[in-house]
Amino acid sequence: MLKVAICGGSGYTGGELLRILYGHDDIKITAVTSERSAGKKLTDVFPHLHRYEDLTYEPLNKEKLLGKAELFFLALPHGASQEAVNFFFRNKRKVIDLSADYRLSDPEMYQEWYGIPHEFLPTLKRAVYGLPELYRNKIKKADLVANPGCYPTSAILGLMPAIKNSLIDPATIVVDSKSGTAGAGRKSDLAFSYCEINEGFKAYGISTHRHTPEIEQELSSLAGKKIVVNFTPHLLPVDRGILTTIYAKLIKKADTASVLALYLKKYAAEPFVRVLGEGVFPNIKNVRGTNLCEIGLRVNSRTNTLIAVSAIDNLVKGASGQAVHNMNIMMGFDERKGLDTMALFP
Amino acid sequence: MLKVAICGGSGYTGGELLRILYGHDDIKITAVTSERSAGKKLTDVFPHLHRYEDLTYEPLNKEKLLGKAELFFLALPHGASQEAVNFFFRNKRKVIDLSADYRLSDPEMYQEWYGIPHEFLPTLKRAVYGLPELYRNKIKKADLVANPGCYPTSAILGLMPAIKNSLIDPATIVVDSKSGTAGAGRKSDLAFSYCEINEGFKAYGISTHRHTPEIEQELSSLAGKKIVVNFTPHLLPVDRGILTTIYAKLIKKADTASVLALYLKKYAAEPFVRVLGEGVFPNIKNVRGTNLCEIGLRVNSRTNTLIAVSAIDNLVKGASGQAVHNMNIMMGFDERKGLDTMALFP
Amino acid sequence: MLKVAICGGSGYTGGELLRILYGHDDIKITAVTSERSAGKKLTDVFPHLHRYEDLTYEPLNKEKLLGKAELFFLALPHGASQEAVNFFFRNKRKVIDLSADYRLSDPEMYQEWYGIPHEFLPTLKRAVYGLPELYRNKIKKADLVANPGCYPTSAILGLMPAIKNSLIDPATIVVDSKSGTAGAGRKSDLAFSYCEINEGFKAYGISTHRHTPEIEQELSSLAGKKIVVNFTPHLLPVDRGILTTIYAKLIKKADTASVLALYLKKYAAEPFVRVLGEGVFPNIKNVRGTNLCEIGLRVNSRTNTLIAVSAIDNLVKGASGQAVHNMNIMMGFDERKGLDTMALFP
Amino acid sequence: MLKVAICGGSGYTGGELLRILYGHDDIKITAVTSERSAGKKLTDVFPHLHRYEDLTYEPLNKEKLLGKAELFFLALPHGASQEAVNFFFRNKRKVIDLSADYRLSDPEMYQEWYGIPHEFLPTLKRAVYGLPELYRNKIKKADLVANPGCYPTSAILGLMPAIKNSLIDPATIVVDSKSGTAGAGRKSDLAFSYCEINEGFKAYGISTHRHTPEIEQELSSLAGKKIVVNFTPHLLPVDRGILTTIYAKLIKKADTASVLALYLKKYAAEPFVRVLGEGVFPNIKNVRGTNLCEIGLRVNSRTNTLIAVSAIDNLVKGASGQAVHNMNIMMGFDERKGLDTMALFP
Repeated sequence: MLKVAICGGSGYTGGELLRILYGHDDIKITAVTSERSAGKKLTDVFPHLHRYEDLTYEPLNKEKLLGKAELFFLALPHGASQEAVNFFFRNKRKVIDLSADYRLSDPEMYQEWYGIPHEFLPTLKRAVYGLPELYRNKIKKADLVANPGCYPTSAILGLMPAIKNSLIDPATIVVDSKSGTAGAGRKSDLAFSYCEINEGFKAYGISTHRHTPEIEQELSSLAGKKIVVNFTPHLLPVDRGILTTIYAKLIKKADTASVLALYLKKYAAEPFVRVLGEGVFPNIKNVRGTNLCEIGLRVNSRTNTLIAVSAIDNLVKGASGQAVHNMNIMMGFDERKGLDTMALFP
Repeated sequence: MLKVAICGGSGYTGGELLRILYGHDDIKITAVTSERSAGKKLTDVFPHLHRYEDLTYEPLNKEKLLGKAELFFLALPHGASQEAVNFFFRNKRKVIDLSADYRLSDPEMYQEWYGIPHEFLPTLKRAVYGLPELYRNKIKKADLVANPGCYPTSAILGLMPAIKNSLIDPATIVVDSKSGTAGAGRKSDLAFSYCEINEGFKAYGISTHRHTPEIEQELSSLAGKKIVVNFTPHLLPVDRGILTTIYAKLIKKADTASVLALYLKKYAAEPFVRVLGEGVFPNIKNVRGTNLCEIGLRVNSRTNTLIAVSAIDNLVKGASGQAVHNMNIMMGFDERKGLDTMALFP
Repeated sequence: MLKVAICGGSGYTGGELLRILYGHDDIKITAVTSERSAGKKLTDVFPHLHRYEDLTYEPLNKEKLLGKAELFFLALPHGASQEAVNFFFRNKRKVIDLSADYRLSDPEMYQEWYGIPHEFLPTLKRAVYGLPELYRNKIKKADLVANPGCYPTSAILGLMPAIKNSLIDPATIVVDSKSGTAGAGRKSDLAFSYCEINEGFKAYGISTHRHTPEIEQELSSLAGKKIVVNFTPHLLPVDRGILTTIYAKLIKKADTASVLALYLKKYAAEPFVRVLGEGVFPNIKNVRGTNLCEIGLRVNSRTNTLIAVSAIDNLVKGASGQAVHNMNIMMGFDERKGLDTMALFP
Repeated sequence: MLKVAICGGSGYTGGELLRILYGHDDIKITAVTSERSAGKKLTDVFPHLHRYEDLTYEPLNKEKLLGKAELFFLALPHGASQEAVNFFFRNKRKVIDLSADYRLSDPEMYQEWYGIPHEFLPTLKRAVYGLPELYRNKIKKADLVANPGCYPTSAILGLMPAIKNSLIDPATIVVDSKSGTAGAGRKSDLAFSYCEINEGFKAYGISTHRHTPEIEQELSSLAGKKIVVNFTPHLLPVDRGILTTIYAKLIKKADTASVLALYLKKYAAEPFVRVLGEGVFPNIKNVRGTNLCEIGLRVNSRTNTLIAVSAIDNLVKGASGQAVHNMNIMMGFDERKGLDTMALFP
């Protein structure tokens, strides 16, 4: 039994990690931290986590935690994660960081978009970007995994086969994403109160969202050259789910069937990516509560454009589920462990 | 591996049975029927059930099905279930019927509320009402279980300890229930279309809902005398969940703490009932996707009234989860098998 | 043109007053106050109120406001309203108070339920409870109207004809109410954030909600004797609307048709109460955005119980619309002025 | 008083016309037709339209209707509208057609996208596309107005100033639209039932939606050359509203402020278009129930792209409200008549 600690366990991603790990029989949760809820029982903060009624939140005392676990999931706010990751990593623990702190390999880009310097460059160099569909082999050997952002997961998986095959003109990529509200975290904030969100819909962070450089880093790496994208997130009146609609001009002759064939081939062995048949498109409701990414696409021959649509559950494939998937790969567990469920529908 | 068939697998309860049973490793699904979808793949009807991509709906050919399974879940419409239940039962198969056809032990009451006669009285006599918290021992030995209705499950569990202990005046019971829309089934019906339900809320079937005699049958049995109740269902703009608010005048001196103690004791050994602490009340969101029934209560000393509130997921504890629980009991499996999960929150 | 000021204009009831009054051509809004938003334009706080782009929130400077308006709507928090009401009233201004501070005529009861003493007893004595269907004649002559609470409006209107006619046993009244989230006000509060409310449903304040004494005061007054009620509010995942389901044992022989006839007669002249036909019941969606109260009812002859269901928009008939109705009555305007609209459906 | 008839009054756009026209004091509704509801009272079909309790649906008997009204709103299904429009128009009545039948000036394009031929070419030639911001002067003199589609209204208004000023490369336009469910109409359809839509989100009709040629027709007309666009509609789990996010490469040097200035100037005199300040973006909730189109935009200098976001209520500015606006222009009424309200928020 692998001893696992969760640092930052009172937010939605922390709660979701706990929910998922309850179904994973190779691990044991030995500590859960929360600064604001230290001393409270988990069930006082998350009544639905009733099977953990013996667990109590503790403060993030790094020295003390070292002795308690072999692997650490960190679901701390951006910035706050830097030092904790470095500490556990330097002390030979496996670390999966759900924050953005170790996702951008270029520390200057990190500083530009997050507004603070990166203080642990040697550790940053050792971090592996935890998108299994791209970096499975590196993750197998990694001690520090930077778990991808939710929007980047949906955008990169939706574009990867097209870019790898040089199908599209990288200068024309549009990534139009729509996310459920849980992605904003669990917090008191008028802008996320029920009556402000319900029956509403809006774009936000147009051209300025922090997931932009993360998407561009990975697409550039796939293309072998610098790519910039138009990325627009929107806020959906649902709890969970991201649907990303992607547009890019084709530079090779292609029709829907041929591009689908290429996507199907690329993802054939992936346990958590489903490429849908021609004329079928994903719905966030069909992946709710699962680690799946579903992808549908069509070639518009009138405009010579590829339109790909991807759907994930932002708390699972976009955060906690992908983190568990990464743990499974790092530890040599069956990749599906804890994640082999189907969506709660309806 | 127990071979299991599902008759009526294209509705929400059928889909939910399939979702739950995927996590149950003592059984194997060998057939799923649907008249309207016969010949279609399961995934064409329910895209979220992607792990069943090898299964295809077949028509309900009873003779043919006999050879395929040892236990049958029937999720057929009321009325349509009578004959199929009888057939499989008479042919020595275990049967769990999710319809209302075998719930009312009095065939005259069945005819009065459902408008059709019961044609299989000897079989009806053998049916056990499948509420494990009341009839576990009978279910263990049963070959035919009538799975309870969703509203009755929430009402009976919320009232049982109070009635058993003669705490309340049975002539004063009010059962005010609020249900998510999935309870109405999967169908084309303007009244259940999105724009009619969303942002709306209403009562329906006031004093005339067919679950009334089922509630009364079980409460009367508990009390040892005839009880009639005021039962009002309402339609909530959510997918899943029933919250039932129950009122009854106290006939014994009692305060909240003493009644809670009594409920706690009664349900102490139950794996799927949680009695909440004083001042804590259930929310359907905390039981979503689970087989739990959560109960909170308060004594109003100004009005000398017990107010109990129970919450279930109507598709799980109110239907398919309870059916799996009944199977586990009938077959001697661990009662939690396939059902040991926590709510998808948020 | 009547000069009107709104004190407390940055909450949902303040915003709704502004929306409604835009359609009222006998008044002019001369000041809107907000402590937290003083100095901000209205449209910065409520982008939907774009026709007021020339208005700016000011602090509640009572002396200064006196010169600006002849009638004051006060939508301040409970407690905070006491002194302001007294000030404007003593200075000969018309006042409509949307807080609870002047609703309970018994100051001891106010202290018991609100936890603070009432400091302005002579003014309290002059307040008229602003439910037009009960007190139209007093409102006509009033200078200070205490605008009713949202739950009491729905409960009292649902019960009034039955109590007035001594149809029911007052000792058996159950008031089970379900309210949209806007009733909680506009605020940063985790408990009212989107992901906590959406797809959820719960009871709260069972037997302890502050609207209980208000309901009891008015029912007792109608009955001519002390009445206590079981009142349970619930939180609906919708923006607006209250549906109240009421139960009471009949003490006279009656059937649905005869009770309906009585309700129809009682409310025949009311512009904002609609009694629905036999077998028809209200839905909050049909009154959204309007000042209507719709009522349906049925007599359950098996249990000898009257079940009445009332629906209102809690921000309109339950707050701001009723306040405008009261203004119309006080000022001799057409009662429908500003309120003669139909629901936004869907 | 202008006598007005509504043909097709039992769908959501018909209901919305009735709601809006109730607040319009220059007209009188003299007939409302519905084939499926002929003989029923309006309030049986739409309980919220209680002020019309004297109106009854009648069948669409064209000869009989001729004598009843001077102006006809037709809210009939596509295809079914062709002949009725022609009849009323040829008989010298004013006609506002809310279907798509007279929107495409090229009958071949109509046949290509709608699958049926256009039988009334001389009448088609006389139809004016009813987008007041483009064609006010033509509408003033028109006898037949083809009321624009909901998606085209949001797309064209979001792009018009940019195209008129040759700011963008027409070959790069992406129109990503998200619509509330009411746009699908009032019907029994499993795909639009509550549990299928709620908590879900998906794209549909990718590259094939019938509003594509309508958008292209108007943009081409504005540009003076043939434009094709990528248009993807999505289905939002809300009742009302369309938010359209538009992308196009800039071909002139421009920053956000300069483009905003241009949009502000273009729409300065428009009563129902609001261009929002820099950094402010629209939300469908802020225009709910109103005839407004709100537009926000940003220039992404990294990608040299204009991103414009427009929001409308699809039933109002996208259908019935725009139809009333067109009537006001045709008849010389004040353009704001019946439409001068603010959004129902929350």
